[in-house]
Amino acid sequence: MALVVQKYGGTSVSDAERVRAVADHVARTRRRGTDVVVVVSAMGKTTDDLIRLAGDVSAVQPPRELDMLLTSGERVSAPLLAMALAGLGVDAASFTGSQAQIITDTTHLNAKIVEVRADRLRAALAEGKVPVVAGFQGVSLDRDVTTLGRGGSDTTAVALAAALDADACEIYTDVSGVFSADPRIVPEARRLARVSFEEMLDIAASGGRVLALRSVEFARNHHVPLHVRSSFTWEPGTWVVEEDPSMEQAVVTAVTHDISEAKVTVTGVPDKPGIAAQLFRALADRDVNVDTIVQNTSLHGTTDISFTVPKTDLDVSLDVARALVPEIGAGEVMGDDGIAKVSLVGAGMRSHPGVSATMFEVLASAAINIEMISTSSIRLSCVVRADRVEEAVRLLHQAFELSDG
Amino acid sequence: MALVVQKYGGTSVSDAERVRAVADHVARTRRRGTDVVVVVSAMGKTTDDLIRLAGDVSAVQPPRELDMLLTSGERVSAPLLAMALAGLGVDAASFTGSQAQIITDTTHLNAKIVEVRADRLRAALAEGKVPVVAGFQGVSLDRDVTTLGRGGSDTTAVALAAALDADACEIYTDVSGVFSADPRIVPEARRLARVSFEEMLDIAASGGRVLALRSVEFARNHHVPLHVRSSFTWEPGTWVVEEDPSMEQAVVTAVTHDISEAKVTVTGVPDKPGIAAQLFRALADRDVNVDTIVQNTSLHGTTDISFTVPKTDLDVSLDVARALVPEIGAGEVMGDDGIAKVSLVGAGMRSHPGVSATMFEVLASAAINIEMISTSSIRLSCVVRADRVEEAVRLLHQAFELSDG
Repeated sequence: MALVVQKYGGTSVSDAERVRAVADHVARTRRRGTDVVVVVSAMGKTTDDLIRLAGDVSAVQPPRELDMLLTSGERVSAPLLAMALAGLGVDAASFTGSQAQIITDTTHLNAKIVEVRADRLRAALAEGKVPVVAGFQGVSLDRDVTTLGRGGSDTTAVALAAALDADACEIYTDVSGVFSADPRIVPEARRLARVSFEEMLDIAASGGRVLALRSVEFARNHHVPLHVRSSFTWEPGTWVVEEDPSMEQAVVTAVTHDISEAKVTVTGVPDKPGIAAQLFRALADRDVNVDTIVQNTSLHGTTDISFTVPKTDLDVSLDVARALVPEIGAGEVMGDDGIAKVSLVGAGMRSHPGVSATMFEVLASAAINIEMISTSSIRLSCVVRADRVEEAVRLLHQAFELSDG
Repeated sequence: MALVVQKYGGTSVSDAERVRAVADHVARTRRRGTDVVVVVSAMGKTTDDLIRLAGDVSAVQPPRELDMLLTSGERVSAPLLAMALAGLGVDAASFTGSQAQIITDTTHLNAKIVEVRADRLRAALAEGKVPVVAGFQGVSLDRDVTTLGRGGSDTTAVALAAALDADACEIYTDVSGVFSADPRIVPEARRLARVSFEEMLDIAASGGRVLALRSVEFARNHHVPLHVRSSFTWEPGTWVVEEDPSMEQAVVTAVTHDISEAKVTVTGVPDKPGIAAQLFRALADRDVNVDTIVQNTSLHGTTDISFTVPKTDLDVSLDVARALVPEIGAGEVMGDDGIAKVSLVGAGMRSHPGVSATMFEVLASAAINIEMISTSSIRLSCVVRADRVEEAVRLLHQAFELSDG
């Protein structure tokens, strides 16, 4: 019998009516002869509400306690969905992350999955039940409740799909798939029927918000085919699968953009071994997630280093960098939160070296200045002014002919 | 080192400010050199909100799923209180019922505690932490989440106090103790400094809403002194303790009343062995909680049986009784939801047989008709018209001189 893991995000179960709609879809899937394991997020904005409540109660929020608090949201949505299924005559049983035996390390707020035992889920499936698992949560080796960080429910779903050897993991959300660009900016953007794990990783890493990076990595490493689709239209969405070498690859698959980052520049950095390491170790020690790093060739024994960080980490990054300036003998440190990143992603770029030239020409023709450039084998990113990024996305989408027509 | 278990009800932790006030009181208790284990209910009306949400989602509500849902409320209040304590510099750790090792049977919605292991709580205390335990919940022998029924958080607190051999169990609520009558009806009612477990059991059973019957029974059986007090005034309240035979006992300690019940009368019941058993077995099979039962002496080979049931069970009780009428050859079945019960409770009644006469005289002098009478060794209850019960409470409180003055 086929088995799918279906994951429903917060917007998919935002109220009683939505929960019933989801139950109806699960019941239909079962009637088609497919076993289902459901993973569910907290309803709507529950998690945000809990974070606000914690802020009202105390400025000191031990991560262990915050994890206990935040996991309560899925403890509501999971039994509600199990009840809705029972109301449709489908035998269901809800499970916490702990009951589903999602064992993690002890890193609260951002725990890594160590093992998924899933014996209770297998037993429930064998009894003809639909297991409904609370997403985003696990239990640590210390028997404490943990959370899996951003996109955690996706990670839960992929991990369960891997552990149960499911045929697919369906990620239901409020968009109908992965697009060639953000449809709010490029109305003619095309829904991609199929992307490779590698492309999806670069799309996620460069601003595509549909799937969290970590769950895509997990799916790739465990060979779990993902199907990203809408719980509002229920139509087929985007499959994220292993790259198929026999297929002709599009040079560029998607244009992505990211306005969540800021830029830090350290000028006059002595061009000596170990300086960069010192800076980025200090940032890592403060849990700053550095994205793009650019360092130019040294001209006069010193160089400028620029890097991007999440806007929320800008202040701490500036503090870290400024504290190091006397020690490393650098010049000054500047922050800039007016930047954005525009990227092209496509597996075919590997064999088409001309893409970068075209990208720079398109931006230059609109007088959009490029402040930083970074590349991977299948991605090309430019940092530009934030107020020009939407225009850049539209121009690149058009230049690489990514629309349907 | 002294150890107290402090239980805070829903009104005591209804919002962020109240949670901080409770944390402050716990911190003060610790500063006085007393170890504290906290048991906390869900915030304010959370549980009612969850029940309504479940109703919106599905008419079918499997008890296992309802238990999972309802326990989420304490999963919010417990870590919030632990955070508030951390904010005051008090090291605290929240525990679910499962983590606190409160092991129950598998009766969902009304589980009985089988065992309290409490190893993790002992370890937390040994590390100088304040354990904050989610009340009302346990984990069954089948590893499912269970709830302990009405007054369940009180039961959690008493069970932990017994398991940890605490010096006392403090029940914080929104009233300042146990009173000689409901202060809303008798403004001059006196707060009782001390009542025996036996009196408290009869007070709880006859309408006193401060403590649930089950937690008092548990405390009596395990010799846990209870202290019922207010989390709004923080002043000393009522101690519920073992009866002290050396003390002079008040004849009457309190006047209680209960307007939550209705009366069922079955007329013309053949006076043969087994008839009553048949009726009350049928009611028990439908989970009807029968309270007072009165059967008069048979005069002409038949008798009338009257009994009281919770108003919410009146319809099902009438159905059960009417279905039995043809089989047992009885007359008719009548329901009456216009009744109320007024009771006198006092350990001294055992040695003062005149109390009943005084009670009947007081009611007669006000022309309050007595419809049913029932007695226990330390309680005397009369069923009267509901619209006369408050007057009856006032008159009896005055007649037995229960006020301070």
